[in-house]
Amino acid sequence: MLLVHIFYLVLVKSIFVHSESFTSTTHLTHLFNTEVELSKQLQSYLKVEYERLDRIEKFLDVIKDEIRQAQGKEEIYFGNPVNAHLFIKHLTVDWYGIEEIVFDDTSKTMADNYLFPSYEDYTGSAVALMRLQDTYKLNTSEVANGEISTNYKSRKLSALECYDLGRIAYTNGDYYHTLMWMQEALDHLDKEINNTSPSRVDILDHLAFSTSQQGNHEHALVLTKEILRIAPDHVRAGSNKIYYEDLIQKKILNGNSDSSDFKSTPTIKKMDNINIKNQRPRDYLDEREKYEQLCRQNGSSINTKRQAKLFCRYRHNNHPYLILRPAKEEQLLDEPVIYLYHDTVRDNDIQVIKDIALPRVSINESIRDTYIERD
Amino acid sequence: MLLVHIFYLVLVKSIFVHSESFTSTTHLTHLFNTEVELSKQLQSYLKVEYERLDRIEKFLDVIKDEIRQAQGKEEIYFGNPVNAHLFIKHLTVDWYGIEEIVFDDTSKTMADNYLFPSYEDYTGSAVALMRLQDTYKLNTSEVANGEISTNYKSRKLSALECYDLGRIAYTNGDYYHTLMWMQEALDHLDKEINNTSPSRVDILDHLAFSTSQQGNHEHALVLTKEILRIAPDHVRAGSNKIYYEDLIQKKILNGNSDSSDFKSTPTIKKMDNINIKNQRPRDYLDEREKYEQLCRQNGSSINTKRQAKLFCRYRHNNHPYLILRPAKEEQLLDEPVIYLYHDTVRDNDIQVIKDIALPRVSINESIRDTYIERD
Repeated sequence: MLLVHIFYLVLVKSIFVHSESFTSTTHLTHLFNTEVELSKQLQSYLKVEYERLDRIEKFLDVIKDEIRQAQGKEEIYFGNPVNAHLFIKHLTVDWYGIEEIVFDDTSKTMADNYLFPSYEDYTGSAVALMRLQDTYKLNTSEVANGEISTNYKSRKLSALECYDLGRIAYTNGDYYHTLMWMQEALDHLDKEINNTSPSRVDILDHLAFSTSQQGNHEHALVLTKEILRIAPDHVRAGSNKIYYEDLIQKKILNGNSDSSDFKSTPTIKKMDNINIKNQRPRDYLDEREKYEQLCRQNGSSINTKRQAKLFCRYRHNNHPYLILRPAKEEQLLDEPVIYLYHDTVRDNDIQVIKDIALPRVSINESIRDTYIERD
Repeated sequence: MLLVHIFYLVLVKSIFVHSESFTSTTHLTHLFNTEVELSKQLQSYLKVEYERLDRIEKFLDVIKDEIRQAQGKEEIYFGNPVNAHLFIKHLTVDWYGIEEIVFDDTSKTMADNYLFPSYEDYTGSAVALMRLQDTYKLNTSEVANGEISTNYKSRKLSALECYDLGRIAYTNGDYYHTLMWMQEALDHLDKEINNTSPSRVDILDHLAFSTSQQGNHEHALVLTKEILRIAPDHVRAGSNKIYYEDLIQKKILNGNSDSSDFKSTPTIKKMDNINIKNQRPRDYLDEREKYEQLCRQNGSSINTKRQAKLFCRYRHNNHPYLILRPAKEEQLLDEPVIYLYHDTVRDNDIQVIKDIALPRVSINESIRDTYIERD
């Protein structure tokens, strides 16, 4: 069958006389390198592409899960500020990362036809979450683990989500909350199985800086040493270590070292650092304290004597219609006087009013000015 | 906890006074539509993308399989003309389809740095395969099923691959081979499990046209009726049916109908159509017949009397070196005289000569001119 081979060449060549062609076995053998290289190139192309689609799919899974949970009960779902924050995060920073790896018109179609929250909404929702934390004196771990009591629970935050909250506080120069959330991020990172992001060094770096800003130089030194243990070449940590050691040395020499600062030596573990100083910045008016107290106050705090004065009654004010069907009045509070009228508007009518009003809701108030102005 | 909800709104709004924001629960509920739509869009984007990558992966699997089979034994692998044709097909028409759905620089990198065969090489290798088929009187089914005897077997061709060969013959106006390969495609299509491509109608359409061109109007009519059974709205088949019926009617009226044309009524089945006329076109010189006979001829055809005259001997021609080490001469043929010398060049030297010569191989010959000229 060598003949077949030889005559195949002859025949093929007879067709392509005077023209370049690659049909001899020898030429095919050379072209074979093209195929081998093509196979390698496509293999790595597919690898990159599958990784890209995998990232998009992970994002899709997150928002599909959110949709499944919120659909049909949006009001109570978003009533939980953690859910609201995560939702805005998905449609802003998370989507920004996905948007740029979706190579077709999807991004443009969405941007042209649908409203998206802005980056400021994202940072705003984080700041709001932290203020709420202060107002209701909520423990960071409780917030991060979805343990605050609302109509709809939020899920446990990932180390990265805690870190991102800490980053927003850090960018705003709010080291009080940075310290809380970076400590929380570190805590979650240790418990996560795939703790690839954020890096431990990044968290420690932010944590060391914020704790030193809050006056805990010994704590900052411990954290900085931990950074250097993981990344011995970390330049800033290297110089910070000297800086903190210097500060502590001076404090001891000046006799300013207050042994009550730490009942125990600070470590990187959160549990051991209950005595770390973390003073809330005094950047707010005194009345905020009062307002926050009012927020925390609930019915049970009214004493029995005052409660005895509160009662329910039928009221008609001699109005002919109300004589036939008196209003059901309940006094909720004596100072200031607050009444609640039951069954005044029918459920159907309530719905109509809500439908008309909701699209126009645009509350415009300022707590600092202590008055609420409604459009 | 309604309070939490209300004050959350108040707090958020206190940050964004005078600026548009989407942080009220009502606004979030509106933004929720954005997320639902985004989820739908990404879902369908991923579907399209995975289908695209799947096509690329299937192509990659084909060439990886080819590489695995050919690597290290390229000469014998490409010695099989079916393998050579498929290889060129993969690097031309198949790659053209993949090239345009690979959205990065892979295509450009490959085109800039590696040699690819041309489209003419692709059609040329198909035509060469068909000539080989004629020369060695190879059965189409044997070629299509990898049953021709060479050093390296080829695999069974798919219906689509048979169809593509038929298409090349069809485009060249070669209805003789179109008929063979379209019949083969139809045969393979029936045996394939996922016979989605090519469509049965497409094959039948080509088959009907080529068989009518070869004079089998009854066969063409049967095939056309089959097309209309599958696709009743097929416009060309509709008018062709009338045309063929008309032709057959006229033939009967003119008494030209030769009952020996068909020993049985033709059907769409290949087995039943052994009597279909398929005359090879007389577009070649008479000497091709002689040349093809020579190609088919092998040792066994030399009669005993002639064979008795062929013998082996040591030859030295009184050359001092050859007296010490005579050449081993074997006469292969008497007319024309062909000698084979054994063990003249050492294996190592053969390899050196091949290494030097192969890159410069460029056979330039023409069978029609009945001489072989070598560069």
